[in-house]
Amino acid sequence: MVDNAKANPIVSVVMGSDSDLSVMQEAIQMLSYFDIPYEIDIVSAHRTPDKLFQFAKNADKRGIRVIIAGAGGAAHLPGMIAAISALPVIGVPIRSSNSIDGWDSILSILQMPNGVPVATVALNAAKNAGILATQIIAVSDINLLNKVKEYKENLRDEVLIKGSSLSNDQNKHNS
Amino acid sequence: MVDNAKANPIVSVVMGSDSDLSVMQEAIQMLSYFDIPYEIDIVSAHRTPDKLFQFAKNADKRGIRVIIAGAGGAAHLPGMIAAISALPVIGVPIRSSNSIDGWDSILSILQMPNGVPVATVALNAAKNAGILATQIIAVSDINLLNKVKEYKENLRDEVLIKGSSLSNDQNKHNS
Amino acid sequence: MVDNAKANPIVSVVMGSDSDLSVMQEAIQMLSYFDIPYEIDIVSAHRTPDKLFQFAKNADKRGIRVIIAGAGGAAHLPGMIAAISALPVIGVPIRSSNSIDGWDSILSILQMPNGVPVATVALNAAKNAGILATQIIAVSDINLLNKVKEYKENLRDEVLIKGSSLSNDQNKHNS
Amino acid sequence: MVDNAKANPIVSVVMGSDSDLSVMQEAIQMLSYFDIPYEIDIVSAHRTPDKLFQFAKNADKRGIRVIIAGAGGAAHLPGMIAAISALPVIGVPIRSSNSIDGWDSILSILQMPNGVPVATVALNAAKNAGILATQIIAVSDINLLNKVKEYKENLRDEVLIKGSSLSNDQNKHNS
Amino acid sequence: MVDNAKANPIVSVVMGSDSDLSVMQEAIQMLSYFDIPYEIDIVSAHRTPDKLFQFAKNADKRGIRVIIAGAGGAAHLPGMIAAISALPVIGVPIRSSNSIDGWDSILSILQMPNGVPVATVALNAAKNAGILATQIIAVSDINLLNKVKEYKENLRDEVLIKGSSLSNDQNKHNS
Amino acid sequence: MVDNAKANPIVSVVMGSDSDLSVMQEAIQMLSYFDIPYEIDIVSAHRTPDKLFQFAKNADKRGIRVIIAGAGGAAHLPGMIAAISALPVIGVPIRSSNSIDGWDSILSILQMPNGVPVATVALNAAKNAGILATQIIAVSDINLLNKVKEYKENLRDEVLIKGSSLSNDQNKHNS
Amino acid sequence: MVDNAKANPIVSVVMGSDSDLSVMQEAIQMLSYFDIPYEIDIVSAHRTPDKLFQFAKNADKRGIRVIIAGAGGAAHLPGMIAAISALPVIGVPIRSSNSIDGWDSILSILQMPNGVPVATVALNAAKNAGILATQIIAVSDINLLNKVKEYKENLRDEVLIKGSSLSNDQNKHNS
Amino acid sequence: MVDNAKANPIVSVVMGSDSDLSVMQEAIQMLSYFDIPYEIDIVSAHRTPDKLFQFAKNADKRGIRVIIAGAGGAAHLPGMIAAISALPVIGVPIRSSNSIDGWDSILSILQMPNGVPVATVALNAAKNAGILATQIIAVSDINLLNKVKEYKENLRDEVLIKGSSLSNDQNKHNS
Repeated sequence: MVDNAKANPIVSVVMGSDSDLSVMQEAIQMLSYFDIPYEIDIVSAHRTPDKLFQFAKNADKRGIRVIIAGAGGAAHLPGMIAAISALPVIGVPIRSSNSIDGWDSILSILQMPNGVPVATVALNAAKNAGILATQIIAVSDINLLNKVKEYKENLRDEVLIKGSSLSNDQNKHNS
Repeated sequence: MVDNAKANPIVSVVMGSDSDLSVMQEAIQMLSYFDIPYEIDIVSAHRTPDKLFQFAKNADKRGIRVIIAGAGGAAHLPGMIAAISALPVIGVPIRSSNSIDGWDSILSILQMPNGVPVATVALNAAKNAGILATQIIAVSDINLLNKVKEYKENLRDEVLIKGSSLSNDQNKHNS
Repeated sequence: MVDNAKANPIVSVVMGSDSDLSVMQEAIQMLSYFDIPYEIDIVSAHRTPDKLFQFAKNADKRGIRVIIAGAGGAAHLPGMIAAISALPVIGVPIRSSNSIDGWDSILSILQMPNGVPVATVALNAAKNAGILATQIIAVSDINLLNKVKEYKENLRDEVLIKGSSLSNDQNKHNS
Repeated sequence: MVDNAKANPIVSVVMGSDSDLSVMQEAIQMLSYFDIPYEIDIVSAHRTPDKLFQFAKNADKRGIRVIIAGAGGAAHLPGMIAAISALPVIGVPIRSSNSIDGWDSILSILQMPNGVPVATVALNAAKNAGILATQIIAVSDINLLNKVKEYKENLRDEVLIKGSSLSNDQNKHNS
Repeated sequence: MVDNAKANPIVSVVMGSDSDLSVMQEAIQMLSYFDIPYEIDIVSAHRTPDKLFQFAKNADKRGIRVIIAGAGGAAHLPGMIAAISALPVIGVPIRSSNSIDGWDSILSILQMPNGVPVATVALNAAKNAGILATQIIAVSDINLLNKVKEYKENLRDEVLIKGSSLSNDQNKHNS
Repeated sequence: MVDNAKANPIVSVVMGSDSDLSVMQEAIQMLSYFDIPYEIDIVSAHRTPDKLFQFAKNADKRGIRVIIAGAGGAAHLPGMIAAISALPVIGVPIRSSNSIDGWDSILSILQMPNGVPVATVALNAAKNAGILATQIIAVSDINLLNKVKEYKENLRDEVLIKGSSLSNDQNKHNS
Repeated sequence: MVDNAKANPIVSVVMGSDSDLSVMQEAIQMLSYFDIPYEIDIVSAHRTPDKLFQFAKNADKRGIRVIIAGAGGAAHLPGMIAAISALPVIGVPIRSSNSIDGWDSILSILQMPNGVPVATVALNAAKNAGILATQIIAVSDINLLNKVKEYKENLRDEVLIKGSSLSNDQNKHNS
Repeated sequence: MVDNAKANPIVSVVMGSDSDLSVMQEAIQMLSYFDIPYEIDIVSAHRTPDKLFQFAKNADKRGIRVIIAGAGGAAHLPGMIAAISALPVIGVPIRSSNSIDGWDSILSILQMPNGVPVATVALNAAKNAGILATQIIAVSDINLLNKVKEYKENLRDEVLIKGSSLSNDQNKHNS
């Protein structure tokens, strides 16, 4: 089902403000890494509510399969998209400048009422949102699932190498 | 400007769930006390997003002057109404059953981004939302302002009486 | 791809302790509602670490597509499953008896490092975990997506009816 | 009712310390933007309590319609003004240098007792206080309400342009 | 200087609401225990601001030496008294019904700005406020200081006895 | 080294108040389970400081090897013992009646300065303190270490049985 | 009673570490301002417990009337002094480098058990500790009380001047 | 039992990421100071789960007596090691870059369920972890216990010298 050509995006990455772009860029990098066709846009729940509605109402009709939404402060974007669309919505809480250490965006995104889930990732963890979107697409794409496994093996190998190097340094010191 | 007949509501009291009614009732009691015509409805940002949009888009055309919105958890109702309507919106954070001691609803309502304010009152303080709506209407209604002053004098007198009674009890004990 | 017969579970619902069952039951009810074949088990990261490893290593080979994991306190179950399996993992923070108002389980599940996401839902929100799992399965199952849409319309209709009833009661009072 | 000449201020902007000025300036900019006549002063609840009392007692007699009060730490200024005056009081919690991440000023302003509301805006959100004051004045001024609508449309348009630009950049990258 | 006759109170115990009385009673019990003449009253910063001003302005002229003030929520009473009077003010944060686990009253009382201290005691710790007031009076009263020492010795002896009893019970069990 | 006869206690279990006994009892149950000779006493840092000093100064001379100390609120007992004794000190934060959801005891025990560690366990987790003390004694006692392994295997088996039972119930339901 | 000559200190200012000196210096500046004879020392509850005991046991015998104690993290110094001495103890919570935003020192100092109060001031508010100590000494020294009143009038006048200047600037802008 | 030659490490210091090394280095410095043979490695619960399992399963067989594990965010490393190994595990919560002021790592490490303790030290307090590991080894090594006592005396002496110097400076100023 997954068409890796860029022509038809299947993951939509939206954010509440252009100041969120530096964080959200990491979601895009992961989608590129996994060759998932994506689109990117600014959709502000509070400043462009009509665009939010149109976006959320039409996303699945345009072929979108997963939505990643990042926002800070009283972050209503992920939850409102989830209210309107039946697609899985991944929420990225962003620590914005006047946020209270990130608590406001975390709680505004996480604490959704029964019936309307948002799949929340860690504070500023747009990278994980990109990976999670990939895992969700991979539910019906065995090749993509294997790519995710490979990615995790790479993560592992990097840590193993750093660990060996650290242990060896230590041993030399000690001998 | 204020028409005290019940026919045309000028304050709209909405809440995200019927479980919020026992709290929001106190807003209504204050509006009744001040003879402010009001309406009441359930509008869930997450479960009835279309109704939310229609409600917020049309409120001022229907003669509404102030909106009171109460919600718990990831409380998006007040903020989304404020996103769509140009009327002043008063937000009442509600400590709902799975809320985290009320922090989620407070931060979801209070921490609105620049450009889209919500006038937030204390946790569960629907009574204060009713009074604040009255004060807002009273900005152009000197009679209503005088009523608010009277109300405050009554508050004062009640406390003064309790204080005297407490002090006297004490003195009797001591003498 | 989705086989709605109960024979081969595609969603696995695990929890850290049998005391979490009353909360996690709501995930199961939603999966039943959407006719998603599921399995259920207790897997404690801290008391049955070997079972955790076997479970997470083999889940996708057994045909599982999505894992829902609920845990309280220093909740390591969802994150450890996500560390081992490439499947999407939904984490349900549970407010257990000695938890600190739920903050410990929320942060232990949500704040996963880069590379290993857990799709976290609200405190005790197993119901939303069940819905989110369904939405994830529905990414490649248009019929299931339509069922989710229907479910949301039912949610909406229930609220609309309660709202009408509340407004009407009010009007009668006022007239 | 609203006289846009600067001669008679109808909104009073007060702050607890001159160190709050850089934040509170944003309230003033919004009032200027909307041509609302305003005044500005330093009134410290803790260091100038007599001035506070005189200020709050006389504000409505001097023609003030709305009061904006900003303060940090154990922020008593907005609440004490609300205790004395019947006018609507907008509170701006300020993250001052020894504040505990802003929690102290937020809770000191927000958690007012029943009977004495303060319309609290987000941490450091003096801009929103200015807009909220305007919305309150606009309750009886249709022209001003239309200006607020225009302002919101401008907000929207700015975001729409940024969104288009971001999407286009992305498309060029992808093609 | 200290006149232990009840006629002229030297400690004033005030609280924001009669609902605080059950907590504040413990301050009075300690003052009685130490034979410190006291008075008791309800003074609400928010509902009786004029009384607050009169009270705080005149307290030292009436012979009061120390003021104990208890309040909940956005607790402004202790801080406002400290703003007006030069006497030492002891603040008792009270966990009232809609308080957020007591954080609001603690921060509203504790986080006073430079220049205007409030001597804050633990949440609901009116007993400690009574002892602290006694210790302050005892600064110039060696007999009273000795009484405080005796009180502490009694505290110690009670714990020693409980400890011995517990240890003995245990030994019997073990032998 | 470990003498399992009750005659000479090697673990000392102390608590700040007799109201902590119901919690601390669980530490004692684990020590009994592992046949570790122990003693129990009440030592209040704030009410019996001399006893605290004597206790901490002499503990190692009396043959004590590990100290478990439980306390609530501003919990100074574990940290002060650690300041005076060179033995490992395990701290149990207790959620006492006027504690702020346990945060005060957790932070008072955990956040010790460099040079003076306290081994802190979870809120109210006296059971874990008993196990940790056993693990510490077992560092030089291979038999005891094996007993700890057995204990963990029992924990595992209990969970495995509950898990099987739950899975089977479910299967019957489904078939 | 108060001897303003420097010879015999009546206020003792102690701190847990020399890194606290820059904060605690402000207490000293206020004591100097009010001509209160003081002494200053480092007394670490955790690293110099014997000195702590000697200090606290003998303070009143050496003529000390009030103790100011500042500490960060798991701040046990003020509480332990209060446990041993019958003098009033003022606690200054200090935001040290690895403190958790100051919460640990605040709660460790504030949340003292019944029977042993510490007069806690705001985070890092050593200046207020100096003023509070002065107010406590002034309880039996009318001249000192008058000095405190003067100090408060100066505070007031500074704010009044800044307020006038700000208002005037504004008016010029507007005219 | 303790062999101080470097050949056979008895304390293992592991961390979740090489970015934790600067913090964890302080544990190593203390172990070196006390001549405790140690090893050091990177073991990520989330990125190298197999290595974690092997490490924890074999540690005691390789002669390790105490494990120190540091991690940030949703810190599962210490708890998972404690789940698998019967050795005492010391957890060091680390304030990593996207952590929420350290709360996530503290709660993820501290709030372990009954049966599986982690000896938690303060935020970033790797130094204390090194000391605590030493104290645990010293439980059966009187020479090492004496070294710990000496270390504490050195700590004391440093503070005493700084205190004398500070007091003397002050006296010169005053004379």
